Amino acid sequence: MNKKMQWLRNKMLSLDLQGMIVSNPVNIRYLTNIQAEGILLATRKENIFLTDGRYIEDVHNTLTLFDEIVVYDVRGLTLEDYENFFMFCENVGFEENYVTYAKYKEYMHKYKINNLVETENMIEKQRQIKDEEELENIKKACKITDDCYEYILNYIRPGMTEKMIAREIDDYYYKHAEGVAFDTIVASGENSSKPHAIPTDREIQKEDIITIDMGCKVNGYCSDMTRTFFVGKVLEEVKPIYELVLKNQEQVLKDMRENANTKQIAKMVDNDFRLNNYDLIHALGHGVGLEVHEAPALGINSENILKENMVITNEPGIYIAGKYGVRIEDTVQITKGGAEILTMSPKRYTIIK
Amino acid sequence: MNKKMQWLRNKMLSLDLQGMIVSNPVNIRYLTNIQAEGILLATRKENIFLTDGRYIEDVHNTLTLFDEIVVYDVRGLTLEDYENFFMFCENVGFEENYVTYAKYKEYMHKYKINNLVETENMIEKQRQIKDEEELENIKKACKITDDCYEYILNYIRPGMTEKMIAREIDDYYYKHAEGVAFDTIVASGENSSKPHAIPTDREIQKEDIITIDMGCKVNGYCSDMTRTFFVGKVLEEVKPIYELVLKNQEQVLKDMRENANTKQIAKMVDNDFRLNNYDLIHALGHGVGLEVHEAPALGINSENILKENMVITNEPGIYIAGKYGVRIEDTVQITKGGAEILTMSPKRYTIIK
Repeated sequence: MNKKMQWLRNKMLSLDLQGMIVSNPVNIRYLTNIQAEGILLATRKENIFLTDGRYIEDVHNTLTLFDEIVVYDVRGLTLEDYENFFMFCENVGFEENYVTYAKYKEYMHKYKINNLVETENMIEKQRQIKDEEELENIKKACKITDDCYEYILNYIRPGMTEKMIAREIDDYYYKHAEGVAFDTIVASGENSSKPHAIPTDREIQKEDIITIDMGCKVNGYCSDMTRTFFVGKVLEEVKPIYELVLKNQEQVLKDMRENANTKQIAKMVDNDFRLNNYDLIHALGHGVGLEVHEAPALGINSENILKENMVITNEPGIYIAGKYGVRIEDTVQITKGGAEILTMSPKRYTIIK
Repeated sequence: MNKKMQWLRNKMLSLDLQGMIVSNPVNIRYLTNIQAEGILLATRKENIFLTDGRYIEDVHNTLTLFDEIVVYDVRGLTLEDYENFFMFCENVGFEENYVTYAKYKEYMHKYKINNLVETENMIEKQRQIKDEEELENIKKACKITDDCYEYILNYIRPGMTEKMIAREIDDYYYKHAEGVAFDTIVASGENSSKPHAIPTDREIQKEDIITIDMGCKVNGYCSDMTRTFFVGKVLEEVKPIYELVLKNQEQVLKDMRENANTKQIAKMVDNDFRLNNYDLIHALGHGVGLEVHEAPALGINSENILKENMVITNEPGIYIAGKYGVRIEDTVQITKGGAEILTMSPKRYTIIK
């Protein structure tokens, strides 16, 4: 059995779960490498992946004997088969934060389960700590993102639209990685005041501010980086905000280490912003892995303790509605004594022609 | 109030619901045009959209006074505010097929709701029947898909990879529409035996079979079309399968009309495939709208009655593992007396150089 399925089995044992239903496809991929619609059952006797005719061939190509996972086509299963999977299981775990209320009721009924137990994101929590192979993939994705940023700085010219620039980034990622990790943001001028701007047909002006939020995937693992930069010259009115964001981004990096409290870190940024009459209107950061947004959350409303080999973002931002915004974001790996920045693109004022 | 919110209000009245929580973002977009993270509450007195700082500006730009929707930033809400929303509401509807088990429990607790009532996909069911504006968008998306198919037939040359072709389709959609409706499938040679193939670096050969499954979005509304075609010449061994798939695809089109039973239609295809020793291994079709896969499902396991102005796909396919596959798919609008094909690309043997 692979290491991650072995972890799941041990975890089940420690929680007195005799069975487990894994429904979240990202968790299924994490545990088994399978990328197909279906559901993973850990029963007393076996690990089972239930899928349908469309995916059988693919799943068999993904798995090896070593995985010890049996694959069934749901079309061949009877009602009795479902009832047998968890027979003699007192407690069966499920993912209450993924499974809908309707599915919960269906599981209870279909598998005739005595006690369907909430597992409190145990797999998502385990996913927070990356192993060597996962770190390798994320580092590659971050390196490609740095390269792409350098490329795009040379590519941008006044007159190009935000959409064209976003498309060029996407093309780069498609060529050098598995494509984008999320919808690329290219927000120029007043559009930069929207933290979640969608690229428009707005053309880059001669003295523009531009925010780009970009990331790609390598073997399913994501990178995430944001830079705000300038065309021709740095806008004087933006300088105080840029300095404030950058100062906090660099301070956060110093505070990030094993056993640091994420709420406290976010609070300090929020306080410093408030002292200057601004607000931290979004989270300070988030975990990065198979999903570009995953646990842990870094914000003033959630308390998390950083652990070695977590990979998280550090992305303070300030937005002046209808005018401009500044966000600076890195992907960061937590180490024993501190943190290692994985996205290395320059953060001091960058001015393009 | 806009027509769709008015519909929701009437529906609530008929179901004796004094309140409703809409959580599914696609349903929120359908009802309000809002595209932002958040939740829509229909209380006794008001329509409320709860969101956060990141989206406030955007949401205000989307809504007009006519919408009669109040927008709140969750950061300004107290526990008491939540309890007040549904005060004096006996029954509050929710989306049991979207809301997770954990969220269900949170809603009960946070809003202090007496009776949280399952609403059995009532909004998704309403979304099945398209109005004039929705049909207009889907028709545009289908027309762009036909144009893109014509373009790509001229573009493909032996030696190109599946990825390059998929990328060209994506580029076309990005230029002429809002981008793709789903991950484009370009499956050549033996890869065409996988119904859900992901484009690979396989190069197109001189006597290849190619299946392309493609669709784009216009104002959020999708198109969906599949064609299987040939390079140089039609492979003799594929002909019987191609004829069988095409015959059934055309027969299904004749059977699709108001009040037709989808299960019966799918059964007939399945029976005909079985008579020839093949299987219908996936659904015969699905609804198309704001989502590329939405209600109704067309398959042998679900009974649905077709209604005027439903938009659905018709996509029988046969797959010989490790060798080749044939799928032919159109997007179709149900009319009173029959059905109108919205994707018009040729379905007879198409051979490119």
